[in-house]
Amino acid sequence: ASSCWFHYLCMEGYRRFLALLVSALLLGFVAVVCSIVWVLRYREGLGWDGGAAEFNWHPVLVVTAIIVYRLPWTWKCSKLLMKFIHAGLNTIAMILAIVSMVAVFEYHNARKIPNMYSLHSWIGLTLVFPKALTMNLFFPLRAALMPIHVYSGLLIFVAVIASALMGITEKLLFSLPAYSESPPEAIFVNCLGLLIVTFGALILWMASRPHWKRPPEENAKVHPYLKKNEWHHIMRTCFPRHFLILCFYLLQS
Amino acid sequence: ASSCWFHYLCMEGYRRFLALLVSALLLGFVAVVCSIVWVLRYREGLGWDGGAAEFNWHPVLVVTAIIVYRLPWTWKCSKLLMKFIHAGLNTIAMILAIVSMVAVFEYHNARKIPNMYSLHSWIGLTLVFPKALTMNLFFPLRAALMPIHVYSGLLIFVAVIASALMGITEKLLFSLPAYSESPPEAIFVNCLGLLIVTFGALILWMASRPHWKRPPEENAKVHPYLKKNEWHHIMRTCFPRHFLILCFYLLQS
Repeated sequence: ASSCWFHYLCMEGYRRFLALLVSALLLGFVAVVCSIVWVLRYREGLGWDGGAAEFNWHPVLVVTAIIVYRLPWTWKCSKLLMKFIHAGLNTIAMILAIVSMVAVFEYHNARKIPNMYSLHSWIGLTLVFPKALTMNLFFPLRAALMPIHVYSGLLIFVAVIASALMGITEKLLFSLPAYSESPPEAIFVNCLGLLIVTFGALILWMASRPHWKRPPEENAKVHPYLKKNEWHHIMRTCFPRHFLILCFYLLQS
Repeated sequence: ASSCWFHYLCMEGYRRFLALLVSALLLGFVAVVCSIVWVLRYREGLGWDGGAAEFNWHPVLVVTAIIVYRLPWTWKCSKLLMKFIHAGLNTIAMILAIVSMVAVFEYHNARKIPNMYSLHSWIGLTLVFPKALTMNLFFPLRAALMPIHVYSGLLIFVAVIASALMGITEKLLFSLPAYSESPPEAIFVNCLGLLIVTFGALILWMASRPHWKRPPEENAKVHPYLKKNEWHHIMRTCFPRHFLILCFYLLQS
């Protein structure tokens, strides 16, 4: 969806689009800052020692990944450059997500807490698979797959936000015995949750406006060699390298 | 979105549409049954006594409301009948949601647990307001408001599911001290969560297919008197009766 927006510059309603774009960027930035303030001010800070400070990378990196994943951007540039930006942002988001999960696994293992028991973890880890499926780096997308690509991109975006909200709920219930008395940390982190929801709502609005979409005939342009190498393409799409690396890592731990 | 689907009967791909429709209906039915099994078999059953049995209406009614809210249905019928079904299902969902919230407030009050402290409650109750806004019962919708109506309908649908997942997380952490050891109840309720997510994903797919939408020129037909009574219409849309009743109830409690 974000890949469609640069075209907007030459269409109507540029001001309204710009206002939404700036709002979303601002909201995203504030959300990342809030997640850092949370762990630095109210929690044990950041570190990589198998303790709570390592766990704290999880919320910070996931919030950053959510923002980077659908970072709204607009650019008067070639389709190729635009695709590289889209792929680049998605790769960064994927790396952030994987590192954030490694932090939790290491924290759990160090404390002998079982992995993968909560609904949050089930949904969170499940999302890595379709995320990997939608990541077809450096391979032009077949026109027939485009609707599925756009749909799954947005579905993953929404599901990651839902998962983040469950994570916030879990973390507050674990770490704040006085959650029900609404101490400052509870209010602060609830607001972080609302910020993420608002960011998501804005992005969904921008992504679902038909007149802010790249005209369909341009989406339909496919690299001709794909018609010959369809299976090769689909295999590389389904099993990108970072996905296999993650499977390997999880099987070992 | 659901209101657009009856048109599909006279369009292409009827079999695939029907398969999705039946799958979504089935998933929704199984999810409601699972929520009932959860409270009857693993929890304290159902009742209206200010205790845990009253609280248990909350998950059962919310899951039912989610399914009813976007119940996929298809019908070769007039636009008016279709609108009545759409409005009727939404009213039922709204009533279920309100009763489910009353159950929690009464349970909290009886046990002297504070209300509205968790992110789940913040998001859950916040959703009632935009839900009320999208409910413009018996008032034809202005064409200009249609995109906002469709967007907010789907956004509320997604947000209610996210909120339900947070609720499941909360309930399991509160009631299952052994959640991390994955007892049968934990697995069962996690699966209920996945069922709800799958139902949501199916509905979003069906609702976002452009060729399953009512042709735009039909959406544009508006009752002519609305052009004269715009403000009246907007006021009635923003403050429907059941919304005011809920505010009154919450202020009193």
